[in-house]
Amino acid sequence: MNQLSQKHQVVIIGGGFAGLNTAKALKYAPVEVTLIDKRNFHLFQPLLYQVATGTLSPADISTPLRLVLRKHQNTQVILDEVIDINPTQQQVILNDHPPVPYNTLIVATGVSHHYFGNDHWQPLAPGLKTIEDAVNMRRQIFAAFEAAEKELDPEQQKAWLTFVIVGGGPTGVELAGAITEIANSSLKGDFRRIDPSEAKIILIEGLDRLLPPYTPDLSAKAEETLANRGVTVMTKAMVTDIQADRVTVKVGEDVQQISAKTILWAAGVKASKMGEIIAQRTQAKLDRVGRVMVESDLSVAGYPNVFVIGDLANFMHQGDKPLPGVAPVAVQEGKYVAKLITKRINGESLEPFVYSDAGSLAVIGQNAAVADFKFVRLSGFIAWFIWVWAHIYYLIEFDNKLIVMFEWAWNYFTKGRGARLITGEASSDLASMIPDTSYEPTLNKMEQATAKV
Amino acid sequence: MNQLSQKHQVVIIGGGFAGLNTAKALKYAPVEVTLIDKRNFHLFQPLLYQVATGTLSPADISTPLRLVLRKHQNTQVILDEVIDINPTQQQVILNDHPPVPYNTLIVATGVSHHYFGNDHWQPLAPGLKTIEDAVNMRRQIFAAFEAAEKELDPEQQKAWLTFVIVGGGPTGVELAGAITEIANSSLKGDFRRIDPSEAKIILIEGLDRLLPPYTPDLSAKAEETLANRGVTVMTKAMVTDIQADRVTVKVGEDVQQISAKTILWAAGVKASKMGEIIAQRTQAKLDRVGRVMVESDLSVAGYPNVFVIGDLANFMHQGDKPLPGVAPVAVQEGKYVAKLITKRINGESLEPFVYSDAGSLAVIGQNAAVADFKFVRLSGFIAWFIWVWAHIYYLIEFDNKLIVMFEWAWNYFTKGRGARLITGEASSDLASMIPDTSYEPTLNKMEQATAKV
Repeated sequence: MNQLSQKHQVVIIGGGFAGLNTAKALKYAPVEVTLIDKRNFHLFQPLLYQVATGTLSPADISTPLRLVLRKHQNTQVILDEVIDINPTQQQVILNDHPPVPYNTLIVATGVSHHYFGNDHWQPLAPGLKTIEDAVNMRRQIFAAFEAAEKELDPEQQKAWLTFVIVGGGPTGVELAGAITEIANSSLKGDFRRIDPSEAKIILIEGLDRLLPPYTPDLSAKAEETLANRGVTVMTKAMVTDIQADRVTVKVGEDVQQISAKTILWAAGVKASKMGEIIAQRTQAKLDRVGRVMVESDLSVAGYPNVFVIGDLANFMHQGDKPLPGVAPVAVQEGKYVAKLITKRINGESLEPFVYSDAGSLAVIGQNAAVADFKFVRLSGFIAWFIWVWAHIYYLIEFDNKLIVMFEWAWNYFTKGRGARLITGEASSDLASMIPDTSYEPTLNKMEQATAKV
Repeated sequence: MNQLSQKHQVVIIGGGFAGLNTAKALKYAPVEVTLIDKRNFHLFQPLLYQVATGTLSPADISTPLRLVLRKHQNTQVILDEVIDINPTQQQVILNDHPPVPYNTLIVATGVSHHYFGNDHWQPLAPGLKTIEDAVNMRRQIFAAFEAAEKELDPEQQKAWLTFVIVGGGPTGVELAGAITEIANSSLKGDFRRIDPSEAKIILIEGLDRLLPPYTPDLSAKAEETLANRGVTVMTKAMVTDIQADRVTVKVGEDVQQISAKTILWAAGVKASKMGEIIAQRTQAKLDRVGRVMVESDLSVAGYPNVFVIGDLANFMHQGDKPLPGVAPVAVQEGKYVAKLITKRINGESLEPFVYSDAGSLAVIGQNAAVADFKFVRLSGFIAWFIWVWAHIYYLIEFDNKLIVMFEWAWNYFTKGRGARLITGEASSDLASMIPDTSYEPTLNKMEQATAKV
């Protein structure tokens, strides 16, 4: 804690791409850094969907924060939850730790799912932001095939084999592509009563095309590729209701009901709770999803020593839209703030933040992706190949890189999915995943835990 | 299901070493096989402690049952819980599936933890049998170091850095060795206020030596190796009470209290619930831990078409003790029963089961193990080297083998533990792991799940 230290105290809340890169860039700065996170690891979120679909294990895309920062002598990590900040006394208030004083505060706590005012949809259509979300989604996807194998009613069986993904952004496209591969390749020959390739995968997007931030030709390419692989893509389709076993969709004046037991949410994000706390304590403005409007140097208006970066920030000083919530923006913002802090300590100033956009990549499935670089737009195998290497390159730790490379190479040739475990509390009791059954457990939790089969 | 089929119906309950090897050995037999398990994967239990201590990921030691049996055209897998058997009607009763008829039944549901009548110790001193157990244990071990880093009270800090393992069999020895490596190597340099190498690891065994089934010289070697690595080994020590933050141990007349926040159970096993069901339905005798006493051909007395194999069986027809609950016994029993079924269908008979003991191996840590082969006893590096290759060799699927080899090689040279994630429900709230605190959550579950930090 070193509260007596004379050194400039930098406190970073959040160990995602933004926060971790700030800490890394301050390694040799004349400051003391405290990184606070609820989790003990950095999560490589762009590959989270591969955990959700059984290609990778949680540890493959997670790196312990302490390990990354081990050689940073000026940095400590505190595992705790921030419950408040006090910009007057310059303190961060934690749940289970004395207040942490700061000279400079960086808030990078990201975003979570947004159900557009329908929070009751959350348990029915889970989203994908955390490792636990991914393991739960993996369980739900693979348990659906198991339930279909056991189902005697043909209508119900069809509902178990119908997968609806709400939201046609990169995550929705990635999930739809991966679930199609599960159905067509990974599970081939696994079942005796169902044919997994008869599964129906439906991708629903409210706007008029998939991947709205991309150019229309790449959107069309993505839609074409998914359709060729058997995905039903619905655009201009609004989800108006979600029940445990069906989705109601409005396309123009046409209202359809889709019977589906597995509904996955990839439609929207809202700011994490820290956004509200910052607004309360600093009178910062929030946008309509709760992100903090930041100045051109990423600080909060009126608080030059308080910064908001990464997905939680709404940076409107470049172009006519806020910068997108993607890893490259977060990384560059983190490095910028570290540089700004160092400059200030030396009595120097720094130009406003400018995001250098190297392009966007979205993967559709094996051998297929779309890439939008400034000078060229690509799709198909080449885009996919670039996607693979870009992701391996940016995986933070060397051992993760090699393991992920190995697992991808293996899966590529075998079409296998080694990590398709159905684990967790609910796993010992498949029946509890069937929302509309009158199932009553015959064993209590303790007995369930001890009875092996 | 094929209830109309004329073929001999073999039903196997449990996809562990015993059950899965029966199914595999019946691939070309003129029978139809149904394998029932609550889980969708086979677990390579001998390496479970490596998941609990952060070296491997759950998927590294788990293989989907359907994948293993994919090419067995005569075999189906049902994911369900067995709630009863009916040997008169020759049916297995499932929780969420119509009854499954059998001509031959094989029960291989294994064992779970045994707290010797102190079941209230279970939440305080968790055992290690399932993937969930391992992930929970991993969370508890690594969260203890985190809590120690935050703790201001020196006595409490010491208790967080004290790890007690109850039971000096192979699992206890493996856990003690691995936690010592975590403290001395893996976490080196990770913390700023604590020195992980000051952690105290205490291994408690009720008998007069570790690894009781081994020869005394190997037990002595194991104890010496652990002591050299900093483990406090207590033998002839009976645990008389367990509280959330202390263990009471009686050594002779001396009663000691050990302050420890992390207490792990590796002391005893009891039969799974299927043992009782078999006893009720067939009048089979159970031993004192609930295992089923089997005939010399592994069948249940009076029911020549009902077999109990693996850890759930007590086979007393070879030597003066039951066969040990280890993987080689289970594998050989599974293969024997498959052979017996095939012989019977051909109107032939088979000699009683004889276990061929190739020897025992227990690992103590990096570069150290003990091996007891009939012709030679080994310890140290050579035993460890044999242990490594034997375990890689027997990992069922080829991709798991390569990944585990890779991770081990990597960990060997880096002393790293890439899979040391603190995940699961409790992970977002470290404070809830401190049993004696008056902590009150400030956010409800939903808010906790959505607030990222």
